[in-house]
Amino acid sequence: MKQIVIDINGLDHGPQAYYEACSEFLIKHQDTSITLVGEISKLPIKNQVKNLILIDNSYKVFDPKNIRQNLKEPTSMNQAIQMLVEGKADGIISGGDSGMYISALTLKAGRLQGTLRPAFMPIISALNGKKVLLLDVGANLEVKAEYLYQWAKLAQIFSQKMFKVQSPKITLLNIGTEEYKGLEHTKEAAKLLLADDSLNYVGFSESRELLRANYDIALVDGYGGNLILKSYEGAILSFKDAIKESALKRIRTKLGALLLKPTFKEIMQKLDYRNSGAAWILGVAKPALKIHGSSDKLAILYALDQMHKALDTNLITDLQGVQNGKI
Amino acid sequence: MKQIVIDINGLDHGPQAYYEACSEFLIKHQDTSITLVGEISKLPIKNQVKNLILIDNSYKVFDPKNIRQNLKEPTSMNQAIQMLVEGKADGIISGGDSGMYISALTLKAGRLQGTLRPAFMPIISALNGKKVLLLDVGANLEVKAEYLYQWAKLAQIFSQKMFKVQSPKITLLNIGTEEYKGLEHTKEAAKLLLADDSLNYVGFSESRELLRANYDIALVDGYGGNLILKSYEGAILSFKDAIKESALKRIRTKLGALLLKPTFKEIMQKLDYRNSGAAWILGVAKPALKIHGSSDKLAILYALDQMHKALDTNLITDLQGVQNGKI
Repeated sequence: MKQIVIDINGLDHGPQAYYEACSEFLIKHQDTSITLVGEISKLPIKNQVKNLILIDNSYKVFDPKNIRQNLKEPTSMNQAIQMLVEGKADGIISGGDSGMYISALTLKAGRLQGTLRPAFMPIISALNGKKVLLLDVGANLEVKAEYLYQWAKLAQIFSQKMFKVQSPKITLLNIGTEEYKGLEHTKEAAKLLLADDSLNYVGFSESRELLRANYDIALVDGYGGNLILKSYEGAILSFKDAIKESALKRIRTKLGALLLKPTFKEIMQKLDYRNSGAAWILGVAKPALKIHGSSDKLAILYALDQMHKALDTNLITDLQGVQNGKI
Repeated sequence: MKQIVIDINGLDHGPQAYYEACSEFLIKHQDTSITLVGEISKLPIKNQVKNLILIDNSYKVFDPKNIRQNLKEPTSMNQAIQMLVEGKADGIISGGDSGMYISALTLKAGRLQGTLRPAFMPIISALNGKKVLLLDVGANLEVKAEYLYQWAKLAQIFSQKMFKVQSPKITLLNIGTEEYKGLEHTKEAAKLLLADDSLNYVGFSESRELLRANYDIALVDGYGGNLILKSYEGAILSFKDAIKESALKRIRTKLGALLLKPTFKEIMQKLDYRNSGAAWILGVAKPALKIHGSSDKLAILYALDQMHKALDTNLITDLQGVQNGKI
């Protein structure tokens, strides 16, 4: 039985979407049980499905910024992580505060042996349908070359196991493609990646090429990764809004927009964060996913699919294997 | 007479676009003279307009990456900068190598007195039509808080003189809006900006808000700025390509795309780098613009308009004034 635990507090629109998504998921997956930890009292429960376990926890943190204090408190996040630690759950999902989540996971569940720093790794859907692993997007604002190198090795295993990519292409995102350009940690990481024959390193790439997906894994420090990710989100949403606004000005373009609806839908589906917005916390000892606070049922179903696949393929065993030098 | 000098070598498609744009510009602006320095022999010249001066220079650099060596060579860029130094030109435009350009300008034409570092400052066209000054986008990958603070003061004068914005809103681009987030230099710069009553500092902004233009000036280190700018370029071009590709699949959406053409045209005109793609080198002692190597006639005309306005409003005098503490 695959055991998933979910911290259901912290979603912008309450825990209802979790309940619906998990119920739907469990009907289709008889090999899985899900424990929801959080404000169960807010859920209108009818006909509870099999293998869905509910633990009520409506504890509210006093000061969300005081991470040190919050690590000790009986929050739904801490309670969910405790289930991982005690072996009562195999994988975890949360939409709670990112900083708090990565700290609690690292301190309580621990890192994969030999891992310097865990990273946030969203899966970007490129326009050609390809999935690109982008890391780090904010767990480590400042990095050392060694972190990037280690993430490359972990992400390679991830890409092989989860997407069946034999020899994933690895790039370093940089301000230019010439090898003399960039910050010291980027240039140093390029040397480490180039020297390792087990990695398919393809050189620097500029951030403008991200959705063309000429690679499977894009490495960058957490500061740069966060700026890139949010710039893409912002540009696409702004462009979409602008089309809407401009199209409504004339009858001709209004009709055009109506006819083009399937096109917009297709593109937004490809780019929709709900199809890819979950970010893995790569480098911790258990499979852990972070989802947006604004996630809806679709987003949660996608996260559940990914977690199920990670458990099904014993992803963590292989990630630990690469850290031990056994793969 | 306003005297503009242009280094015409270094454009991807040759110097023809410069010649056409400058000829058109000079017919409309009798108060200006333009000197073109570069491969004049490549130009098919007919009916040369008044106040257009041509200096042939087809010198090719041996190694484009050897900036130290190239500073000494008789390139068109160096020759154009020399005209600034000798007072034979008041402002300069070049589409040549960015690193080379900023080095040569700083060393030969010098900085505004008291300026720590010059910055690359493109003018971003937001979707609401507002212009946003974004700096730095790559001249200084690593910065100190003091650079950001100084750029705020210079950009404020720029916004007031060039766009008549009385009290431009200033933001720091960061990975979050909470004051405890971000790299040290960003948090330090926030304190400096907040403490200065002459600046309208509005706090941190995330990179996803750039095209909403809730501010007039966006400050960031050159590394982050470069990644943001190129991410926006990439997202918009990718989105446009995707619409085209997807729309062509069905007759219905093909017709929709045809009817929506005015909308796409309107948006792309707003976002087109040619309407805003020129970047100012803010902090050097003379008005200096860098344009894309892929610039066409429209882009050059826009750059000429901006340079004309800068000379017309004595921009440099006021920029020096603020550095001397007189404004």
